[in-house]
Amino acid sequence: MQPKIEVGVLGATGMVGQHFVKFLQGHPWFKLTWVGASDRSSGKKYRDATGWRLGGEMPSSVADLTVEDCKPGNAPKIVFSATDASVATEIEQSFAKAGHVVVSNSRNHRMETDVPLLVPEVNADHLQLVPLQQRKRGWKGQIVTNPNCSTIVLTMGLGPLKSFGIRRVVVTTLQAISGAGYPGVPSMDINANVIPFIGGEEEKMQVETQKILGEFAGDHIQPLDAGVSAHCNRVPVVDGHLVTISVEFANKPAIADLLDAFTRFRAVPQERKLPSAPPQPVIHMPGNDRPQPRRDAERENGMACFVGRVRECPVFDYKFIALGHNTVRGAAGAAVLNAELMVTEGLLD
Amino acid sequence: MQPKIEVGVLGATGMVGQHFVKFLQGHPWFKLTWVGASDRSSGKKYRDATGWRLGGEMPSSVADLTVEDCKPGNAPKIVFSATDASVATEIEQSFAKAGHVVVSNSRNHRMETDVPLLVPEVNADHLQLVPLQQRKRGWKGQIVTNPNCSTIVLTMGLGPLKSFGIRRVVVTTLQAISGAGYPGVPSMDINANVIPFIGGEEEKMQVETQKILGEFAGDHIQPLDAGVSAHCNRVPVVDGHLVTISVEFANKPAIADLLDAFTRFRAVPQERKLPSAPPQPVIHMPGNDRPQPRRDAERENGMACFVGRVRECPVFDYKFIALGHNTVRGAAGAAVLNAELMVTEGLLD
Amino acid sequence: MQPKIEVGVLGATGMVGQHFVKFLQGHPWFKLTWVGASDRSSGKKYRDATGWRLGGEMPSSVADLTVEDCKPGNAPKIVFSATDASVATEIEQSFAKAGHVVVSNSRNHRMETDVPLLVPEVNADHLQLVPLQQRKRGWKGQIVTNPNCSTIVLTMGLGPLKSFGIRRVVVTTLQAISGAGYPGVPSMDINANVIPFIGGEEEKMQVETQKILGEFAGDHIQPLDAGVSAHCNRVPVVDGHLVTISVEFANKPAIADLLDAFTRFRAVPQERKLPSAPPQPVIHMPGNDRPQPRRDAERENGMACFVGRVRECPVFDYKFIALGHNTVRGAAGAAVLNAELMVTEGLLD
Amino acid sequence: MQPKIEVGVLGATGMVGQHFVKFLQGHPWFKLTWVGASDRSSGKKYRDATGWRLGGEMPSSVADLTVEDCKPGNAPKIVFSATDASVATEIEQSFAKAGHVVVSNSRNHRMETDVPLLVPEVNADHLQLVPLQQRKRGWKGQIVTNPNCSTIVLTMGLGPLKSFGIRRVVVTTLQAISGAGYPGVPSMDINANVIPFIGGEEEKMQVETQKILGEFAGDHIQPLDAGVSAHCNRVPVVDGHLVTISVEFANKPAIADLLDAFTRFRAVPQERKLPSAPPQPVIHMPGNDRPQPRRDAERENGMACFVGRVRECPVFDYKFIALGHNTVRGAAGAAVLNAELMVTEGLLD
Repeated sequence: MQPKIEVGVLGATGMVGQHFVKFLQGHPWFKLTWVGASDRSSGKKYRDATGWRLGGEMPSSVADLTVEDCKPGNAPKIVFSATDASVATEIEQSFAKAGHVVVSNSRNHRMETDVPLLVPEVNADHLQLVPLQQRKRGWKGQIVTNPNCSTIVLTMGLGPLKSFGIRRVVVTTLQAISGAGYPGVPSMDINANVIPFIGGEEEKMQVETQKILGEFAGDHIQPLDAGVSAHCNRVPVVDGHLVTISVEFANKPAIADLLDAFTRFRAVPQERKLPSAPPQPVIHMPGNDRPQPRRDAERENGMACFVGRVRECPVFDYKFIALGHNTVRGAAGAAVLNAELMVTEGLLD
Repeated sequence: MQPKIEVGVLGATGMVGQHFVKFLQGHPWFKLTWVGASDRSSGKKYRDATGWRLGGEMPSSVADLTVEDCKPGNAPKIVFSATDASVATEIEQSFAKAGHVVVSNSRNHRMETDVPLLVPEVNADHLQLVPLQQRKRGWKGQIVTNPNCSTIVLTMGLGPLKSFGIRRVVVTTLQAISGAGYPGVPSMDINANVIPFIGGEEEKMQVETQKILGEFAGDHIQPLDAGVSAHCNRVPVVDGHLVTISVEFANKPAIADLLDAFTRFRAVPQERKLPSAPPQPVIHMPGNDRPQPRRDAERENGMACFVGRVRECPVFDYKFIALGHNTVRGAAGAAVLNAELMVTEGLLD
Repeated sequence: MQPKIEVGVLGATGMVGQHFVKFLQGHPWFKLTWVGASDRSSGKKYRDATGWRLGGEMPSSVADLTVEDCKPGNAPKIVFSATDASVATEIEQSFAKAGHVVVSNSRNHRMETDVPLLVPEVNADHLQLVPLQQRKRGWKGQIVTNPNCSTIVLTMGLGPLKSFGIRRVVVTTLQAISGAGYPGVPSMDINANVIPFIGGEEEKMQVETQKILGEFAGDHIQPLDAGVSAHCNRVPVVDGHLVTISVEFANKPAIADLLDAFTRFRAVPQERKLPSAPPQPVIHMPGNDRPQPRRDAERENGMACFVGRVRECPVFDYKFIALGHNTVRGAAGAAVLNAELMVTEGLLD
Repeated sequence: MQPKIEVGVLGATGMVGQHFVKFLQGHPWFKLTWVGASDRSSGKKYRDATGWRLGGEMPSSVADLTVEDCKPGNAPKIVFSATDASVATEIEQSFAKAGHVVVSNSRNHRMETDVPLLVPEVNADHLQLVPLQQRKRGWKGQIVTNPNCSTIVLTMGLGPLKSFGIRRVVVTTLQAISGAGYPGVPSMDINANVIPFIGGEEEKMQVETQKILGEFAGDHIQPLDAGVSAHCNRVPVVDGHLVTISVEFANKPAIADLLDAFTRFRAVPQERKLPSAPPQPVIHMPGNDRPQPRRDAERENGMACFVGRVRECPVFDYKFIALGHNTVRGAAGAAVLNAELMVTEGLLD
């Protein structure tokens, strides 16, 4: 058995950071040995610096780590970034400059032309941007990102359909409260209510989707030439973003072919049997009222995308729904899967 | 002061029936003097036959009425129908045949070619179908219907925009649990969850919208020639259906003109100051996260449609959200407003 | 018609302050003409300084008031205090010293020996502390307080039973999220959950209840010599605190007498027909599953206490439940009723 | 490795039956080979007869079983009973008479003087009733029961304290909706609400607790001579019953001794390492706001009881809270643990 690869988490005390800590527990390849956070926390034990908000207990192997400043130095080569957008640009670049592989869940670098925005089942080849990034920026290290949580659900649902020529997409999201972190959404706002607005979310879904579904074109990603319109809503659900999708294709498939495309879809993470990859990334549920967030999001360790209600759309070609676990597949799990992909690409050597 | 017009409610003991009873309380023109229900209840006092599920107390003036069979005879000329779809066809037709004006919230006759499907602010002129209906069916009475609750919200949101030439609409609903009646949705299904399916709802929204926005064409309604695609979802909200709308026009207006169309929209119910008509039927809320079901649906006595978040749509022309109170404007209040309109048309003479 | 009495609100921009603004709208005796808040807000229009969180719209008569510093000077004689506990001691005392009548919802002075802690239906006579307070502190003004929101529900439920000799009370609360203000309870904590802890609440319920049910003893309130034990919980309900009560009496009444005591209970606010007083302060609901927060808390303008499920207790004498609206009867409405009582006592002259 | 013991489930298609099916999946000792249900289902495959309502998928090994009538005959010796109370008396007795070991979750026989009402950590010795039961009733088989879900939480919380002499207990429950089965509680009743009544629940908690904490006295159980008063409430929580407890002892311990009693508590199931027994049956959580249903009920496979907030009670000696998973430890898991205990007692030979 190979020794595990040591990894760190930037912004480890916040909600997303806690999800990284939890998701990495017992990981077969990676061992979390370093946690970084803001000045306020550094120097304390992780257990003392962190108000643990997740179910279950704080992993004991992490609880006794001393929180470090978010500065390169003694950090391991691979660092996952859960840093707040207000500081992520500077922190992530300083680590990449110092030779670290920064696998980031933050939004800051997602739309940079030389930074891969990865959903490994959909666009693993976008990793080809990395050498360009290193050359252009003079970095020995690198930054690789995963999309916004709602974008991941949408692009995993659309990924298997790419060959039909996606032309137009109208999507409405029903997003869980955990997507807003902690304290996040006040209960007075969301109890028995819907909040029909999430700041910046619609714009992110629209442009990130085009980039993820786009093509590597030598020195940049050519975004998919498809119209994407998002309506984003917060609903009183704990975990699991559900989206309704109407889609128009260049080549409308028969419905059987569409279902087949979902069910047979396998990609690089499955071929390489990456440890966090779901055996079947997109699962079609035949029940007429499934998938549902509370009942389905946690299946497959929260790493699959569930689709259902596939039917003809009177306006476009088809409509259907998709569901994914926003804090697992949509955040920490996404980044860890990216890192696993990068290991198999030799990008960490 | 004129004496009030006596009215009855068919199916008065069920949830929708209770909403009629509540809404008619203190009505300036109508006085509820007759309640009909199934055999199981007839002969009992309304208070004994009815498990009152609404907030507040059962109106005392109704509590002592004796529940009658749902058969014409001693019923007043105007009857509101809250009967279950399984029996509504037969009951409503027997009353119309016997000379009653049946103002129905049931779905059974909505799509009949000679039956008006009314949203008084949008298509009051569809009442011209009534003489045709009476002639064709040989009835002295008549049946007039109001749409499904989610359709009302959509058509009130689209009504002011009709002059721009509505061509395509993609709509996703987030519907309140009260829309499913009582016992309705089991809490095990909807607590902290979304149910992405409501049986028959999408089809109803699609065809009803086309009929309501259509034109009276001498002997029938010419449906609007526009594609309408609906995604219907149940969310854990008590009252108020929220819908997200993307719309394409034949003549795309400037956004200021669109907002103006909402805000200046007035129609027959406002001109005639019908007692249940909201002074301003469509209210634009400028806040970036409004309207919201729990905070806004009950305003204006639950009879207005609230719109917000009007913005460019990357796929169609504009997108926005609309909200309405599903058991008031979407059911009992809708039917009562229809009856008020009919009074002013002389249809009850 | 007499001119209205001008009043002010200290801490007017916060959640409790907003409840005062809303509750005072259209008040027959009082006119809100002055709003005070922290430095951060002073000098702005109320509409600009305030993120309005309540249902409905901000009252337009208040929206254009200029927010003042929380310092006596141009404030009207009567000021309601919704100030935060961290500053309430100093602010309220400075106003009282300057001759103002401070009717406070803050906790800071509640347990002072010379400050009335009022529930007007239960202990209106405790206002006799005021002259003592003025003499002792050398104030021309005065401070009068209302209890914590959960205490009000408990003491209104126990008030009618005082003559039976209350000896021991075990109470468990199920408290609404609105009691924690805004942003208050994070939705991640309370969605589909219970939080079995509210900081300081149990201690407040225990000692405040003894003081409220105690006797004016010449120069102080002799607390009721009864054991009171509280278990406080937050539940995912918007408005309305429900409490379960087991109570032991010195003289156990027959159950019919207990029910009679609830139903016949009337006190000073009812005798004097104070405008905010509910005609019947304690309403017994006979249904075996009532009262319920969502269905009942808002009845009677939110000013009554609803009791139900009265039955023998195997451990003490009786057990029952009580419900009250925490932000109305439990906060703003309580203070306004206190002020109305004080007007009729001539304490504002 | 020993062959597994075959078991059956009576009432297997209902909600409790489904919980048995799920809980028995992969059980190390028992293999579910027989499912019984009402006439309506018998003869069908389990997959066709059952609307699966639980998270995850129906276990495939059970899906293809043919549902049998609830009559002895080809059923295995051990049957778990999840039958409805309306038929449980007759069905369970017919199986016991025919020589089966009926391990029942139904309430019908719980309070029979010759039927054990077991919580294996608390009163394993009550199994001594079985020979008496067989002799008295002339049965070769037997009926053993587990308590009501809320009673289990209370008695596991009180069990470790028995040696201090429990004299009086006042308990208020905050019970999850899953306790009411499916469709169970209508969402219109419980959304953002509390229902302060659960039919028959308080009476069950009171008498069952006294029996469980009672002593085997040769030919019957001498109930604990302690007053128990329960207030039962339904709250909008999916799984996990939380109870607040005030308790009076004959010998009041120091608080350290009370905490010690919780933490050190081990009993027969732990000594014998029964497969479903939690290693530590009662877990004290030191956080001031724990345990909480959504965050804690599922820990320890849902089989432990979590206690917290232990503090002095101004009326009795101590107060604290307890939490347990109502459909696991409070139903299916309880019965399976009973059966495991019985295996080790040789009662199945």
